[in-house]
Amino acid sequence: MEQEVVGATPTSCTRKMNKKLSKPSINLPGGFIDRKEKELVIRDYLIIQIKEVMKKYGFQFLETPSFEYTDSLGKFLPDKERPSEGVFSFEDGKKWLSLRYDLTAPLARFTAKNFDNLPRPFKRYQLGTVWRNEKPGPGRFREFLQFDADYVATNNILADSELCILIAEILEKCGLENSEFNIKISNRKLSKGLLEELNIKEQGKQSTSLRAIDKLDRIGIDGVKLLLGSGRKDKSGDFTEGAKLEEKQINKIIDFLNSKGLDQLEKIECKNKIFQDGIKELKQMVRNFQFFKFTNFKVDPAVVRGLEYYTGPIFEAELTFKVKNEKGIDIEFGSIGGGGRYDDLIKRFKNQDCPATGISLGLDRLLYALNQKNIFKFKQKNPILICVLDEKYMDYYFKILNLLRSKNINSEIYSGSSNFKGQLKYADKRGCKYVIICGENEVSKELVTLKNLVLGIKISDDIKSREDWTQSKDAQKTFALSNLLNEIKK
Amino acid sequence: MEQEVVGATPTSCTRKMNKKLSKPSINLPGGFIDRKEKELVIRDYLIIQIKEVMKKYGFQFLETPSFEYTDSLGKFLPDKERPSEGVFSFEDGKKWLSLRYDLTAPLARFTAKNFDNLPRPFKRYQLGTVWRNEKPGPGRFREFLQFDADYVATNNILADSELCILIAEILEKCGLENSEFNIKISNRKLSKGLLEELNIKEQGKQSTSLRAIDKLDRIGIDGVKLLLGSGRKDKSGDFTEGAKLEEKQINKIIDFLNSKGLDQLEKIECKNKIFQDGIKELKQMVRNFQFFKFTNFKVDPAVVRGLEYYTGPIFEAELTFKVKNEKGIDIEFGSIGGGGRYDDLIKRFKNQDCPATGISLGLDRLLYALNQKNIFKFKQKNPILICVLDEKYMDYYFKILNLLRSKNINSEIYSGSSNFKGQLKYADKRGCKYVIICGENEVSKELVTLKNLVLGIKISDDIKSREDWTQSKDAQKTFALSNLLNEIKK
Repeated sequence: MEQEVVGATPTSCTRKMNKKLSKPSINLPGGFIDRKEKELVIRDYLIIQIKEVMKKYGFQFLETPSFEYTDSLGKFLPDKERPSEGVFSFEDGKKWLSLRYDLTAPLARFTAKNFDNLPRPFKRYQLGTVWRNEKPGPGRFREFLQFDADYVATNNILADSELCILIAEILEKCGLENSEFNIKISNRKLSKGLLEELNIKEQGKQSTSLRAIDKLDRIGIDGVKLLLGSGRKDKSGDFTEGAKLEEKQINKIIDFLNSKGLDQLEKIECKNKIFQDGIKELKQMVRNFQFFKFTNFKVDPAVVRGLEYYTGPIFEAELTFKVKNEKGIDIEFGSIGGGGRYDDLIKRFKNQDCPATGISLGLDRLLYALNQKNIFKFKQKNPILICVLDEKYMDYYFKILNLLRSKNINSEIYSGSSNFKGQLKYADKRGCKYVIICGENEVSKELVTLKNLVLGIKISDDIKSREDWTQSKDAQKTFALSNLLNEIKK
Repeated sequence: MEQEVVGATPTSCTRKMNKKLSKPSINLPGGFIDRKEKELVIRDYLIIQIKEVMKKYGFQFLETPSFEYTDSLGKFLPDKERPSEGVFSFEDGKKWLSLRYDLTAPLARFTAKNFDNLPRPFKRYQLGTVWRNEKPGPGRFREFLQFDADYVATNNILADSELCILIAEILEKCGLENSEFNIKISNRKLSKGLLEELNIKEQGKQSTSLRAIDKLDRIGIDGVKLLLGSGRKDKSGDFTEGAKLEEKQINKIIDFLNSKGLDQLEKIECKNKIFQDGIKELKQMVRNFQFFKFTNFKVDPAVVRGLEYYTGPIFEAELTFKVKNEKGIDIEFGSIGGGGRYDDLIKRFKNQDCPATGISLGLDRLLYALNQKNIFKFKQKNPILICVLDEKYMDYYFKILNLLRSKNINSEIYSGSSNFKGQLKYADKRGCKYVIICGENEVSKELVTLKNLVLGIKISDDIKSREDWTQSKDAQKTFALSNLLNEIKK
């Protein structure tokens, strides 16, 4: 393939357009998609709702950049020259840069950098794209729009409680009924304390066990049992080594995972201090929920959310209705968002205690789920098209256009180069509800003909002239230009 | 440095928090910055203005992803294994991916892909981050928020004219006076035709000449003269080879660049067909401007905007007031946006003619310039802080909080773990105008004490108790809880 020489900036472009080249790809790389107006308008609506809630709750808006030093985000398994899969990274001089894979790691860096100037607690929210360099597959994306809210520099459980409330309020504002979701809460101290009580201290055993618990959603209680024991073969035949715990240990963990609600949890025999702290924090959250008059939650120890990332309360927003894929088949949708307390993350940068807690919501996922409910009547206010019957009437068309736009009415003069029929086809494809048609008759008498395309006949191939098309007179009206605004209001 | 093992997803995080590590960087890579609330709120405002104008003009919202195949964006000077500087690129399996460096190249790919399903003309707008992997330096960023509007699949000059009008309308909506900017227009056919007329046909001479003209803004007429001739030494002593044109040729080009307005341009003796087409298109644009009653433009052949990228009308929005840098010194700010017609770009993908024209606005630059005018009174509605004097009154504090938030009043209960003084310091740092203070007296009698921090005394180190601090009674008021909303409205 020939090299085409193109600089980065338009001003340095020296594209050799005329040379014969093999054609570039019109497709997108896997895991990336184009998003069209309908989706974007609804997304804008969701974003406005979220921002309103955040303001009401006293959060500050922040935007960190897409790139950070790779070591600020966390160091990764080295792939020889290049940091590991999972993250998009570049060599930049002598250091590596990475695109953020979440909004929490950049917040930790920001906090460490600005520690002395921030109010404490620092309550910030951010909306932004995050990237994951995963193997693309059906339904797996490599960029997501994410919303995060965090309380930094506080160990007050009020912060964790309020995060749950605000997820709930956001979901309601976005159009979900109370019965369509709930917030599941747990505490990382429970599983940590329990493993300690069961004398599972070896690092490998511990993390394999936690990873097993975290898979409960996908593989069920029996799957977790296998992973806590000798191991598990998945559908594809791949075998995952288990934690090789004793049966007694496994049974205790399964009992724990099966206990629903605070009452059952308290019945688990575990004197371990960390476990009991976890119970205490859960109780505090439940008490705070009562103050907030918030009842839409479940205490559920099966929520794990990440392995060594979280240190205390964890929470997850789960939908109670079934989400379907494009083929109409119910899918395991998983949580719509969640988070938890990460008291040690900021300490990574400075030897300074800075407990923190936060939530993330995946906006694309939320939008996908909400769309299934058909709650968004997308009112596409497509423009009124002013047809160009003859160039010599352009000043009249502009007169109409200026009038409409001065009243903020979406409108346009046809800006292509097709004849009348082509213009109607354009109006049809563009979804215009009305077209304005002015020929000699209208222009000479300061009239306007307004045609309702929804009521009108289908634009067929028989249409060659204005006359052919305007036979269905019922969908069409001619009136004085001075009446145009009134007619449109109707 | 020890390796820390971190997967990409929180659930696979196995961060070894407790290991001794050298600390990660708290700084950002050059060319990237954090953006805070004040800037973001104003930016949101600008974005809303832009979207309203776009709707009114009948444009459709589109969002292409951050990444494209490198060859879709255009192929670059190969840096052996890696595509050239200027673009962030990754090897992904056997293909290269790049972060978009503008929004036009992705639009061309989108159009080629969806050609049969798009209305023609296709009028789309997009807002999005673009990345340039340039050497970072003071004031040089590597990511920008950009707004683009394009007419695809039309060669109608109405489209180009309307783009100028809509830039002007956006700038006005964003707060600029008519006198504070103007739209400069020219046409690429003028310089192309003129060089043809002057018999400058050799590719190298042609592009060196065009590049020289494009630098007029920065190096002035004399600098351009040198670059058209033997060459030019810049301040740093670097020598740029010139196009080595004859004096007669150079003088003609300089005459052309110096001609201001359509009248002077028409006096340039140049029979070349392409040149004359350029004049014709400029005249059409001026005629359309009259229809729009738009006068805030200048015909200026010194506008070049990119070398072989554009094929017809080009335009640039220029500010007429001086922009200062952070040190208060006037800077060469350059254009705030612009664009032009690029009739050959989409043809790259398919052998199908698809003329197009578009504009870009740099939102960060626009914001920077607007900020200097101080037109944005940033009304920071910071939350009302409810102080926690004693945990035992939490239910009362929540009662107040629920009341305020039910009326959408920004408010929060202090969620840190400091004492009263720490809470006041927090309120001060957070910019809270009011705090609510309720101790035994208030709680027992269903009262609320509201303190105006703006009127109140400075929070000093002498403050140890509530009593110390509430001596300046004038800024403070105690009333029945049932009156709270009324009092706040005042």
